[in-house]
Amino acid sequence: MKQSVLVTKTRKEVPVDEVARNAKLLIRAGYIHKTMAGVYSFLPLGLRSLEKIIRIIREEMISIGGQELSMSGLQSPDVWEKSGRWGDDADEIWFRSHLSAGGDVGFGWTHEEPVTEMMRNHIHSYRDVPLYVYQFQTKFRNEKRAKSGIMRTREFMMKDLYSFCADEEQHAVFYEQCAEAYMRVFTRVGLGDDTYRTFASGGAFSDFSDEFQTVIPAGEDTIYLDPKKKIAVNEEVCTDETLEKIGLQKNDLERVAASEVGNIFTLGTKYSEPLDLTYTDAHGKPQPVFMGSYGIGPARLLGVIVEKYGEDSGMSLPMSVAPFSAHLIALGDSKETFTAADMLYRMLQEHGLDVLFDDRDVSAGEKFADCDLIGIPVRLVVSDKTHAQKKVEFTDKVNGGERLLDTTPDGILSAMKEVGFSPIQQAYA
Amino acid sequence: MKQSVLVTKTRKEVPVDEVARNAKLLIRAGYIHKTMAGVYSFLPLGLRSLEKIIRIIREEMISIGGQELSMSGLQSPDVWEKSGRWGDDADEIWFRSHLSAGGDVGFGWTHEEPVTEMMRNHIHSYRDVPLYVYQFQTKFRNEKRAKSGIMRTREFMMKDLYSFCADEEQHAVFYEQCAEAYMRVFTRVGLGDDTYRTFASGGAFSDFSDEFQTVIPAGEDTIYLDPKKKIAVNEEVCTDETLEKIGLQKNDLERVAASEVGNIFTLGTKYSEPLDLTYTDAHGKPQPVFMGSYGIGPARLLGVIVEKYGEDSGMSLPMSVAPFSAHLIALGDSKETFTAADMLYRMLQEHGLDVLFDDRDVSAGEKFADCDLIGIPVRLVVSDKTHAQKKVEFTDKVNGGERLLDTTPDGILSAMKEVGFSPIQQAYA
Repeated sequence: MKQSVLVTKTRKEVPVDEVARNAKLLIRAGYIHKTMAGVYSFLPLGLRSLEKIIRIIREEMISIGGQELSMSGLQSPDVWEKSGRWGDDADEIWFRSHLSAGGDVGFGWTHEEPVTEMMRNHIHSYRDVPLYVYQFQTKFRNEKRAKSGIMRTREFMMKDLYSFCADEEQHAVFYEQCAEAYMRVFTRVGLGDDTYRTFASGGAFSDFSDEFQTVIPAGEDTIYLDPKKKIAVNEEVCTDETLEKIGLQKNDLERVAASEVGNIFTLGTKYSEPLDLTYTDAHGKPQPVFMGSYGIGPARLLGVIVEKYGEDSGMSLPMSVAPFSAHLIALGDSKETFTAADMLYRMLQEHGLDVLFDDRDVSAGEKFADCDLIGIPVRLVVSDKTHAQKKVEFTDKVNGGERLLDTTPDGILSAMKEVGFSPIQQAYA
Repeated sequence: MKQSVLVTKTRKEVPVDEVARNAKLLIRAGYIHKTMAGVYSFLPLGLRSLEKIIRIIREEMISIGGQELSMSGLQSPDVWEKSGRWGDDADEIWFRSHLSAGGDVGFGWTHEEPVTEMMRNHIHSYRDVPLYVYQFQTKFRNEKRAKSGIMRTREFMMKDLYSFCADEEQHAVFYEQCAEAYMRVFTRVGLGDDTYRTFASGGAFSDFSDEFQTVIPAGEDTIYLDPKKKIAVNEEVCTDETLEKIGLQKNDLERVAASEVGNIFTLGTKYSEPLDLTYTDAHGKPQPVFMGSYGIGPARLLGVIVEKYGEDSGMSLPMSVAPFSAHLIALGDSKETFTAADMLYRMLQEHGLDVLFDDRDVSAGEKFADCDLIGIPVRLVVSDKTHAQKKVEFTDKVNGGERLLDTTPDGILSAMKEVGFSPIQQAYA
């Protein structure tokens, strides 16, 4: 895409009403727009990053047998009354409204109840399980405070997967597969080294649930981590009893701030019993379905990535999530140089590279500042000087290092691949 | 995908609480699930069709220069009070709620106000326009009645595009480009022959708006159409004065039921003036931006397609929107036949064909009935008989005609292409 037609502009000034680094940077770079406190819109750059993250999560969910669907946001009280989660004590979570046709309605903040109800049409026999469904769907939560940018918002997209198994044994196999798929997601988006599977509070059916916590200074949670074992415990449950149970030594642990980037829960029959989701076993006897739920918020993930890869002056995002893989900049006054840059842009696009081309008639300083802010990991510069040598300046912004390359697509693509580029099917031109 | 693992099951019984054909068929076929009156969830088959429609619309919006973003559902009253659309008279449209932190909030049913407000950050000079942004975003409308299945719902995805131009002249060019792009969308999803650009009520800045109406018996609107000129007039505005203005003869018109599948509006400065969206013209003078808005509901489109291509017993959807391009059925008791069908399934998948493979251990009658209901346009049958001849039976369900083909991928793919198959980048495996 040409930057001259990109609908957004960067901003020099830091938004005064934001405290979180991710919101400050993403607003300045033109990725997001604040609609109101705790509510953001995604502009083209932000949406491209979000779509790359979604694609990675989708691939991993498909790899463990997940099937995608999309449930409604609007929720009828009936089904939630059965589980006891429509009650007044949940008033700080629900947004509720009224139907003009009469009756109450809520806006879904999670989907255990409706997915359990829905699956009654499709699960009948032991041959119908195990079965895994997931969605990328917008949730609404009536958060009292919202000050962490896109890491905690009142409206957010969630990837929520629900598993339906015959029994605890069948469930345990999938639960571990999903935990591994989650770690692959965090590795692919650039958070693998700092993300720890973390023991957290459980429920009726398990001693613990598993959180995935990424260590960042802005993290809202506190965890105790064992860096050697790459395991952590949420402060909530970090008692002597817990440590003994899971085999960690108090002296090996570090206390750090972290942000929850995913969680997985064993639900057991907590929802299938009150909502009457059963299957007939091999002996013809009805049995409650054994369930689990598994969440990742793609926008929250982007927020955490920006916290990790951002600085006050800008950011260098991992190739896998940056809105474009390369930022091509044309410098100098010569028309020939500009034409050469434009030809290179077209050639790279034809070879499957997603490039943002700064073709604007602004100063070199402004172009470099925007490039630093927007955070695309590779910078390509065509100037009068490089053009005279028929070269392009290639900068790996993440690992550092500048060099001159021939202006052939093959050479540039192979340099791109060295720094992690892989052509993906682009949803957008 | 193998049908044995598909999470949904078809249903023989017709849902008693649905009157619309599209809802009856789509629920029976396992495309959608009714969450409550006027609210549906999309199951894997339905989501695949929806995603194909979205992809077609996205391609056409990109082709006219649209840039994709995604605005929030949650809306703050402030911005809507400026245009006068937060008022009580709009109570039947808005779902409203309260923030637990204090204050009112609404759920967006359209986005003129917030997009105008947002663009104040990005439009400053005449060099910044024209500019077009669009989104696929979930809207909420507090409809009093909902009885048309997925054609009119309380929650629905909308493709809404907003144009920002310097003046009426610049706007008129894009308005026509968008009208043409809309007709390409309707043609590609199989509604081209029955869809008419229709004069409808205008606003402060134009005598008329343009609707796109598809002639179907279940249509909620009444239009007068001129079949030769392929133009229609909505009953609302079909006066002698209107007909004279647009050059249609009363005697040439047919009165028919139709469903609105898209609409485009000239907004002029209706929103840019109260919300203060201006640009500086070439003489340094501030001018209000001249706007337009352009909507298509992908799920409504699917509903209209099913109304057109459905019958009581099932449907045959156009290749461009069917959840899979071919439905492969294995018949007979022989293990060799089944193995041959399974090999063919893998081979076709490797060649980029999206196939639903009915590998279940159920009767031939059940398989054929499901195939009729699910509505994939091409049926491939491998039976003991065809296997003995090393053939597969190919049925074009839309145009009719059965024939035996060799079980080579090339032959089958070329037959698929003859009936409209084109390999697309599949989002799902």
